[in-house]
Amino acid sequence: MSHSILIKNALIVTVNPQMDVFRGDLLVRGNRIDELAPSLNISADETIDAIDYIITPGFVQTHVHLCQVLFRNLADDLSLLDWLTKKIWPFESSHTPESISLSAQLGIAELIKSGTTTIMDMGTVRHQDAIFEALAQSGMSAVAGKAMMDFGDRPEGLQETTQQSIDESVRLLKQWHGYDDGRLQYAFAPRFALSCTRELLQETGRLAREYRVLYHTHASENIKESELVRERFGVSNIQLFDKLEATDHLCLAHCVWTDHDDKELLQDKKINVLHCPSANLKLGSGIAPIPDYLERGINVSLGADGAPCNNNLNIFQEMRLAALIQKPLSGPQSMPADAVLKMATINGARALNMENQIGSIEVGKRADLTFIKNNQVHSIPFDNVYSKLVYSTQANDVEHVLLNGKWVLKAGILQTIDEKKVLQSVNKTLAKLLQTSK
Amino acid sequence: MSHSILIKNALIVTVNPQMDVFRGDLLVRGNRIDELAPSLNISADETIDAIDYIITPGFVQTHVHLCQVLFRNLADDLSLLDWLTKKIWPFESSHTPESISLSAQLGIAELIKSGTTTIMDMGTVRHQDAIFEALAQSGMSAVAGKAMMDFGDRPEGLQETTQQSIDESVRLLKQWHGYDDGRLQYAFAPRFALSCTRELLQETGRLAREYRVLYHTHASENIKESELVRERFGVSNIQLFDKLEATDHLCLAHCVWTDHDDKELLQDKKINVLHCPSANLKLGSGIAPIPDYLERGINVSLGADGAPCNNNLNIFQEMRLAALIQKPLSGPQSMPADAVLKMATINGARALNMENQIGSIEVGKRADLTFIKNNQVHSIPFDNVYSKLVYSTQANDVEHVLLNGKWVLKAGILQTIDEKKVLQSVNKTLAKLLQTSK
Repeated sequence: MSHSILIKNALIVTVNPQMDVFRGDLLVRGNRIDELAPSLNISADETIDAIDYIITPGFVQTHVHLCQVLFRNLADDLSLLDWLTKKIWPFESSHTPESISLSAQLGIAELIKSGTTTIMDMGTVRHQDAIFEALAQSGMSAVAGKAMMDFGDRPEGLQETTQQSIDESVRLLKQWHGYDDGRLQYAFAPRFALSCTRELLQETGRLAREYRVLYHTHASENIKESELVRERFGVSNIQLFDKLEATDHLCLAHCVWTDHDDKELLQDKKINVLHCPSANLKLGSGIAPIPDYLERGINVSLGADGAPCNNNLNIFQEMRLAALIQKPLSGPQSMPADAVLKMATINGARALNMENQIGSIEVGKRADLTFIKNNQVHSIPFDNVYSKLVYSTQANDVEHVLLNGKWVLKAGILQTIDEKKVLQSVNKTLAKLLQTSK
Repeated sequence: MSHSILIKNALIVTVNPQMDVFRGDLLVRGNRIDELAPSLNISADETIDAIDYIITPGFVQTHVHLCQVLFRNLADDLSLLDWLTKKIWPFESSHTPESISLSAQLGIAELIKSGTTTIMDMGTVRHQDAIFEALAQSGMSAVAGKAMMDFGDRPEGLQETTQQSIDESVRLLKQWHGYDDGRLQYAFAPRFALSCTRELLQETGRLAREYRVLYHTHASENIKESELVRERFGVSNIQLFDKLEATDHLCLAHCVWTDHDDKELLQDKKINVLHCPSANLKLGSGIAPIPDYLERGINVSLGADGAPCNNNLNIFQEMRLAALIQKPLSGPQSMPADAVLKMATINGARALNMENQIGSIEVGKRADLTFIKNNQVHSIPFDNVYSKLVYSTQANDVEHVLLNGKWVLKAGILQTIDEKKVLQSVNKTLAKLLQTSK
């Protein structure tokens, strides 16, 4: 009989289709939510009184770069293309398996401590196994893929031919896709149109369909990038991926610079928009027209993007900002808090083709639960729990996290990562890496 | 001999004119910074090893409303004038001395726990003594004044005649200005032009000059408010206060909607702009042209404004947002992190006419110090301490706060406020208040 956990008296924010919020009990059996009711009179292997907590679905971030976490606070005040070519690519090019593993562990530690349980990650060109290993050991749930870059100027450590890029991606897919009952999955991840040949974009799309995995890339983040894509390919970013018939499950990060036709395509082809508000502001990229996307029924989810363009991986920052930045443009009624909470949970699940598994608290779904302290001087009182979660809650209010039925955070302490060791290793490893990247 | 505290091995971010940052020691004697050096070989009554901390000047927020903290998360998705008339004024009107005291305590608790040591506060029309009493007991440093409202539609509890408003303000000034060696000061606080007669605006300006105290109001926050001011007074908000010769130390919150002439006036008359980025976004007011103001040498400081339009009182949120929101408009180079940190410290001190007392870590200044944990998974590594403070640091990283030479936060525990009691009282007090406000 699998291990059971009875959670009592919690304020449960389900994010189910009815958006039910109620105080009650929740039974976890194995890695699933087994029962959910105002009161459960059953016994379990483990019982927790959660009267002081709000419980939300584990948060889902659909666009992050674990390999960049080590470069936090090292690349401010640059626009996208300078940021990539002057800082991020040279840094990434200098990564070793050890440094990339540490970067991933640091990122996963931050993500779990702030309540995120599933991510879609884009790696760099090499050492992707080290990222998967860090994910495997941490208990984190992820859809990840190595970055593919077979075109354009780039440092030596990021160079590969089209065939090398595809072969390595397929090797990684075969090695990692489906690991631990699907906790880890593979996604093809061409970096962005400017770093790829048409052949690579097309072939990965075909392979994504063949292997039934996601296709994850950046598009229309920055105005200059968008113009360069149009120059090189003769169509917009969004049209390009549509014309290539790249896949039937496309996940495009950013989509800041889209015109009417692009929006129609996003809508018609059910393309998933991965919105990264902090990164879009910090790189001066712009403000994505999210209220318009939502009105069109486009699925919009959230991601912190890279630590060096954020400089956190904190879902509460992204939710707050996703709500706030639209209001001067679209009015204070735009982006109500409940819509934003959906972006950080169920919409993320939908983007990852996992809406039957995660993204809401419902019987039968995976037991990914975030326990948030309810009674803090910065977040009381409240009338509207959505307002509280989106505007007032801080990352540190996350106290426990259950992921795939296992405790990965308990009383603020990471259960699967040696936080102290990670913290002690960072500066030394970074110093070594920076020396090589010079 | 006064009590001495020796702080060893800290990373000291001085915000002095040279923007010195160094690892070293700091001696506090009484309520003053007495010595500052890479190494001090002296003994003190109390010695602290601060090797794990960044020490910054205590943060200064120049525009908050303690009386509104109890209404956090109760007034989302409204524009300024609706927000005031439908929610905030009815709430404020229902305040009792007990509820306003609790609201202030809750706000001060949040402010201290997130490292803010000095505020400029605008109260409501009545019960200002209760706010001063809460400030006095908490050890907080504040420039505060009752809101003045002698004009326009407003609930009963906010009604007063011009003479009553002035008399009560002067009584409060005489009672509280200079309390505890200047830790508490008075400022005249006409709510905004639309709530005041010309007579009141003019007379308070005269009195502010006479008593040498600050003049604190809202101006040009919202486009409709700005238009209504122009309709009623025939000039813009900024011109109005200038024409009234209201004072020679004017502190104007927001200044979002200013034209070329307004900006010239702000510059020529050395008017202090109190910038509240979260509130400006949340109420859909707009984005203030801060890079332009800074280029003109206008003194811009920061404030969280009211909890119901933020919904935090967290200086780290305001710094991050002040930096981020300008970048899509003015480029990623705009608003570098060091300029933002100044806004949250020394510029705030300047706005409050206290730049000789607070806002930087310098010998002779008041010992207002914020100790920030340096080694957190969400904020390491770092190359640039300003980037770390502005983008990566979270409120909860604040571990100790020294204010006026006294510990008000020690290891995360409030020393002058009974946090548990405050937390326990909030819901009951709010429920009672909401019943009366219906």
